[in-house]
Amino acid sequence: MIRNILLTIEYDGTDFSGWQIQPSDRTVQGEIGRVLKVICGTDVKVNGTSRTDAGVHALGQQASFEADLKGLPPEKLAYVMNNLLAPDVKIREAKVCPPEFHARFSAVGKKYIYKIMNCASRVVFRRNFYYFCERPLDAEKMREAAGKLVGNHDFRSFMAMGSTPQETTVRELYSYDVEWRDLPEMGENAREITLTVTGNGFLYNMVRIMTGTLVEVGLGRIRPEEIPEILEAKDRSRAGHTAPPQGLYLAKVYYSEDQLYGK
Amino acid sequence: MIRNILLTIEYDGTDFSGWQIQPSDRTVQGEIGRVLKVICGTDVKVNGTSRTDAGVHALGQQASFEADLKGLPPEKLAYVMNNLLAPDVKIREAKVCPPEFHARFSAVGKKYIYKIMNCASRVVFRRNFYYFCERPLDAEKMREAAGKLVGNHDFRSFMAMGSTPQETTVRELYSYDVEWRDLPEMGENAREITLTVTGNGFLYNMVRIMTGTLVEVGLGRIRPEEIPEILEAKDRSRAGHTAPPQGLYLAKVYYSEDQLYGK
Repeated sequence: MIRNILLTIEYDGTDFSGWQIQPSDRTVQGEIGRVLKVICGTDVKVNGTSRTDAGVHALGQQASFEADLKGLPPEKLAYVMNNLLAPDVKIREAKVCPPEFHARFSAVGKKYIYKIMNCASRVVFRRNFYYFCERPLDAEKMREAAGKLVGNHDFRSFMAMGSTPQETTVRELYSYDVEWRDLPEMGENAREITLTVTGNGFLYNMVRIMTGTLVEVGLGRIRPEEIPEILEAKDRSRAGHTAPPQGLYLAKVYYSEDQLYGK
Repeated sequence: MIRNILLTIEYDGTDFSGWQIQPSDRTVQGEIGRVLKVICGTDVKVNGTSRTDAGVHALGQQASFEADLKGLPPEKLAYVMNNLLAPDVKIREAKVCPPEFHARFSAVGKKYIYKIMNCASRVVFRRNFYYFCERPLDAEKMREAAGKLVGNHDFRSFMAMGSTPQETTVRELYSYDVEWRDLPEMGENAREITLTVTGNGFLYNMVRIMTGTLVEVGLGRIRPEEIPEILEAKDRSRAGHTAPPQGLYLAKVYYSEDQLYGK
């Protein structure tokens, strides 16, 4: 019996060349496909919501596939897959969806988290999970600038050069929160700054370019009031640098109830 | 001018085949020697306090070496080394010591930390930094058992089989603390349990075997009152399993003031 299954996936992107399957590199899609082939006895095409880059992590990537589980009850699939998967990927949930559901095309929004460690000296244990900024960042200013990115805008200035041309570069951001906490054990003024952004869609490298721009705001190189001009310019060179992949986490994908459970 | 230098070193042991230099594998001693050769222009013998195993981490490993820094002021050594070292090793401090000082032979004690994650499901991001125990552990019982290991004892039961013969297997533990905190974000009853042990010396794999034994106490397989009998038996097979390397951190090495600063 062919079923349409939706997986919720957590992974540490450090040792992967990103999500998308590649002939010779280790990828998350490749690793999940390998395990599904063991279970289903045949090649399975796994459709991920987001093609995360090398080094980018996921707390809640989503992927769907159609396959015959060969008698394995779907409620046992996550457990069985986790026993076969490498330790840097974990299936958090597996559930049966209506036949027309597709993890990517059905998605109505996404949430990304970006973690910054703002302290004078690096911590070797966190190097793969944070963007380390050694100079002090003004997080209040970053919060002010993030607020100016929320809404319906043309985000062309925040799309990587050389991206595949898009039908439209207009996207809507629903929220962009900047929160911080002191880390006294890591020295005076050490802080963890967490950026959380939700929107209906994101252009290639958009979250990392927005993060790099907010870091430059935090450093005083860009003023929050310049954000509307940067958006208006529709010019990548006006925005800040591209923040590194290791601070980025795909946190959640949003679907409508109708899509997940059928009408 | 030849100086005797003491380094305080932090490293993530995940991608190292341990401390000790090996012809073909990546080791911490090898990585530090590589960088010192760049600075000093010659091979430098680096003496580490503890030969940590593959996967074991350090917050405060110590190593000393004698070398001519070729005009580099010792107070700049840590900074220069950190710019040359791979991102999973960091020099926290470098200082000049009396000529007779030796990082290993001068040490009078050490502190190790062992981190356990006690929760029903694994977190991919922490797999290299914790021992994951899925069944609930009774941390109060573990604390009671740890207290019975403190003091001057023959720890032969807690030494790995096949270890290099020792002049004596008597060691003194000064303290063995068991602390825990709830991790509500990781599910009901999820806890981080931290074991901190200090002593004048440790046999091969002793901390990992003591940890494995305390975990079995936490699971109810060994009673705290059995610890004195296990010590008395002087028989490795009476103690618990060897806990995995990734939860272990060499936290601190103790020296006397006389040794560090001269008499």
